[in-house]
Amino acid sequence: MANALNLDTVVLSEDGKSVVILDQTLLPNETKYLSLNKAEDIWEAIYKLRVRGAPAIGVTGGFGYYILADQIDTEDMDEFVTKCTEIMEYLNSSRPTAVNLSWALNRMHAVLLAEKDGKTVAEMKERLKKESIDIWQEDIQISRNIGAYGYELLEQLGKGVGVMTHCNAGTLATAKYGTALAPIYIALEHGWDPKNDLHVYCDETRPLLQGARLSAYEMQTAGVDTYVQCDNMASYTMKSGKIGIIFVGCDRVAANGDFANKIGTSGVAIIAKHYGVPFYVCAPSSTIDMTLESGDEIHIEQRKPEEVTEMWYEKRMAPEGVGVVNPAFDVTDHSLVTGIITEKGIATAPFKESFEKMGIRPIEKYVDRK
Amino acid sequence: MANALNLDTVVLSEDGKSVVILDQTLLPNETKYLSLNKAEDIWEAIYKLRVRGAPAIGVTGGFGYYILADQIDTEDMDEFVTKCTEIMEYLNSSRPTAVNLSWALNRMHAVLLAEKDGKTVAEMKERLKKESIDIWQEDIQISRNIGAYGYELLEQLGKGVGVMTHCNAGTLATAKYGTALAPIYIALEHGWDPKNDLHVYCDETRPLLQGARLSAYEMQTAGVDTYVQCDNMASYTMKSGKIGIIFVGCDRVAANGDFANKIGTSGVAIIAKHYGVPFYVCAPSSTIDMTLESGDEIHIEQRKPEEVTEMWYEKRMAPEGVGVVNPAFDVTDHSLVTGIITEKGIATAPFKESFEKMGIRPIEKYVDRK
Repeated sequence: MANALNLDTVVLSEDGKSVVILDQTLLPNETKYLSLNKAEDIWEAIYKLRVRGAPAIGVTGGFGYYILADQIDTEDMDEFVTKCTEIMEYLNSSRPTAVNLSWALNRMHAVLLAEKDGKTVAEMKERLKKESIDIWQEDIQISRNIGAYGYELLEQLGKGVGVMTHCNAGTLATAKYGTALAPIYIALEHGWDPKNDLHVYCDETRPLLQGARLSAYEMQTAGVDTYVQCDNMASYTMKSGKIGIIFVGCDRVAANGDFANKIGTSGVAIIAKHYGVPFYVCAPSSTIDMTLESGDEIHIEQRKPEEVTEMWYEKRMAPEGVGVVNPAFDVTDHSLVTGIITEKGIATAPFKESFEKMGIRPIEKYVDRK
Repeated sequence: MANALNLDTVVLSEDGKSVVILDQTLLPNETKYLSLNKAEDIWEAIYKLRVRGAPAIGVTGGFGYYILADQIDTEDMDEFVTKCTEIMEYLNSSRPTAVNLSWALNRMHAVLLAEKDGKTVAEMKERLKKESIDIWQEDIQISRNIGAYGYELLEQLGKGVGVMTHCNAGTLATAKYGTALAPIYIALEHGWDPKNDLHVYCDETRPLLQGARLSAYEMQTAGVDTYVQCDNMASYTMKSGKIGIIFVGCDRVAANGDFANKIGTSGVAIIAKHYGVPFYVCAPSSTIDMTLESGDEIHIEQRKPEEVTEMWYEKRMAPEGVGVVNPAFDVTDHSLVTGIITEKGIATAPFKESFEKMGIRPIEKYVDRK
C-alpha cells in the first residue's frame, strides 16, 4: 500500500455486502480477517470483542446496519422501516453500554426516518450505504487530524524521537490511525523511516495487556522500532532519556482538562512530570465533556478480580481469597498535561478557555475509546 | 504460635540433622516444607530458587555447611578441613553470584580455620552448629530491629493505616520477618488486629510477580487484610487516600541515599512524592555501600525478554520479534526518600551524615535481597 499503515480494523467489503473486521481476539499471535454478513455473526463479533475500541465498534455498527438493511426483501417502506428498527435494536443489544454503538445505529436510523418520504426502498438503501461510509470516513478524518497535530510535535522534537504510550489508542481502536498512535502513522506517511526515525515504547498495560498485545502488534506491523515494557518500567525508561514525548488516548475529558483513561495513565503522567517529559492526551473533541467541571465527577468502574489474579495465566498467580484492586480507569489531573490534541487543534492550559476557543460545546457523546 | 508470624522460611530441624525450607517455587498455590540433608538436595534447592532472597540463601548456606560437615565420618582434623572445603565450594556453586551465600559459607569456613587448633572434630562440629545458628539468629535480629523502627512509624500513623509495598522484602526473603514487611509483623506482635488495624496493598511486581505470589501470600498467611494490585494501580490507590505509608526493601544503598531495588520502585517513589505519601526504604546496614557516592554508579542488569512476553502465560502475549525492556532493578533518587530504616535506626536527609552518625562504614557486604 502507498500508505505506511497496512492494517484495517473495519471496512466495508468491495461488493458492499459484508463488513470485514480484523479479529482482535487472536492478536498478537494470528492476523485473521472475518467477512461478516449475517446478523448473528456481526452481533457475535461485537459481543465477543473481536472488534473493540468504541470508534471501531461504532463504524461496525453503521456498516452492520446498512448491510442487514440491504438484505431486506421488500419494496414497502413501512415494512422496511419496521425491519430496520429490529436490526437497530438487535445490534445494539450486543454491547448495550457501548455509547458509540448506539450513537452510530441511532444516526443511521435517524437518516432513514428523516429521509424516507418520497424515496423508494432501493434509493433509501443507497442513502444508508452513504451514511455508513460517512461515519467510517469521518472517524478516519478525526484520527488523521489528531495525527497531523501530533506529527507537528514530533517534527519539533526531530527524527530519532522516542515515543511512549499506554494501553491501545491506535488504529485497532478506531476505523484507522487511532488517536495516540495517529501521529506515528502520519509521520510514516511523511516518509519517516520506521526503523530509525521513531522508537515506540508500549507499556504492556496490565491487566488486559492492550499495550503488549495490540499497540506493540500494530506498531510492529507498521514496521516501527517497537519495545514492550512492563508498566513499572516507565520510570526507568524515562530516566534513561530515551523518551521525547508521551501520547495517550482518553475515554473522557472534563472541562478543566482532567481526563479519564486506562488504569495506569495517571502514574505515567506523574512520572513524566517528574522527569520533564512532555505528556499529551489525544482526544476527539466528542470525548470532551464540557458539562463535567472536573475529573472528580467521573465514576471509575471496578472490574473482576480474576483479571488480575488468573487471566492469561497457566495457574493462579495470587493466593486464593486475597483482596484485589482492579479499577478500569484512573483520572489524571490537568496540571500534569502538556496539551490535549483534538481534531480541531491542541488545547493547552487553561483548558476550559482553550476548548471554548476551539468551539467545543456540550454536545453529542461519541466516546469511550477502550 | 505466640508469634503472629506463622511462617518460617528456613530453619534447622529439631534434631539438627536437616535444613527445613519452605519451597517457594510452589507459592502461592501450595505450602510445602522440604527437609534437606543431602548435599545435592541443598544445592538443588538454592539453584532452583526453592529458597530465595539473599539473606534466606545465606542462612541456608550456613545450615547446609554445618549439616554436611556433621556427616563427615572422621576424627582427623586435616581430613575434616579438606572435606569442609569441598562442601563450601560445592554449595557456593549453586548460585555463584549470590553474595550472601558466599558470605555465609566463608564465615563458616573462617571459623573452622581460625578455631580448629586444639579442638577435636566433634567439638568443631558443635562450634560450626553454633555459628550457623548465630547467622540465622543475627538475620532475624536485624529484621526485628528494622521492624521495630518501622513499627514506631505505624504507631504514629495510628491503627487502621494502609501500607503499600513493592516486590517481596518479607519473611520469605530472609530468615524471618523480612525488611519492608517487618514493621507489619512487629505490629501484629504488639497486638494489632490483622483484619482491622492494618491494610496492606501489594504491587504485583511484574514481570516476576513477587508481590502477588509472595508478599500477598505471606501477609494473607499472617491474617492481614491484604490487597493485590497491578503495578499501574499504585497512583489510583494513593490518590484514594488509603495509603498512609510505603515500605520497600532494597538491594543496595549509596552513601547519598540513592538506592537500587526491584524494577518499579522509583515510579512508586515519584508517585508517593506527588501525593505526599511518606516513602521509607528498609535496609539492613550491610546493604549501605558507603563507597558508592550516588546511585549513578549502580549497574542495572537487563534480564531475558521472555520474562515479559511469555513467562506464566498460556500463550505468548506480545508479537514475535518485538523489542523488550526488562531491567531487573531501578535506582530511586534520595530526594524521593522520606527515610531509610536500618537495624541501627532511621536515617534521614542528608543521608551520608545520618549514616555516619549511625556508625555505618564501608565494610562487609551482605546484600542483594532479591
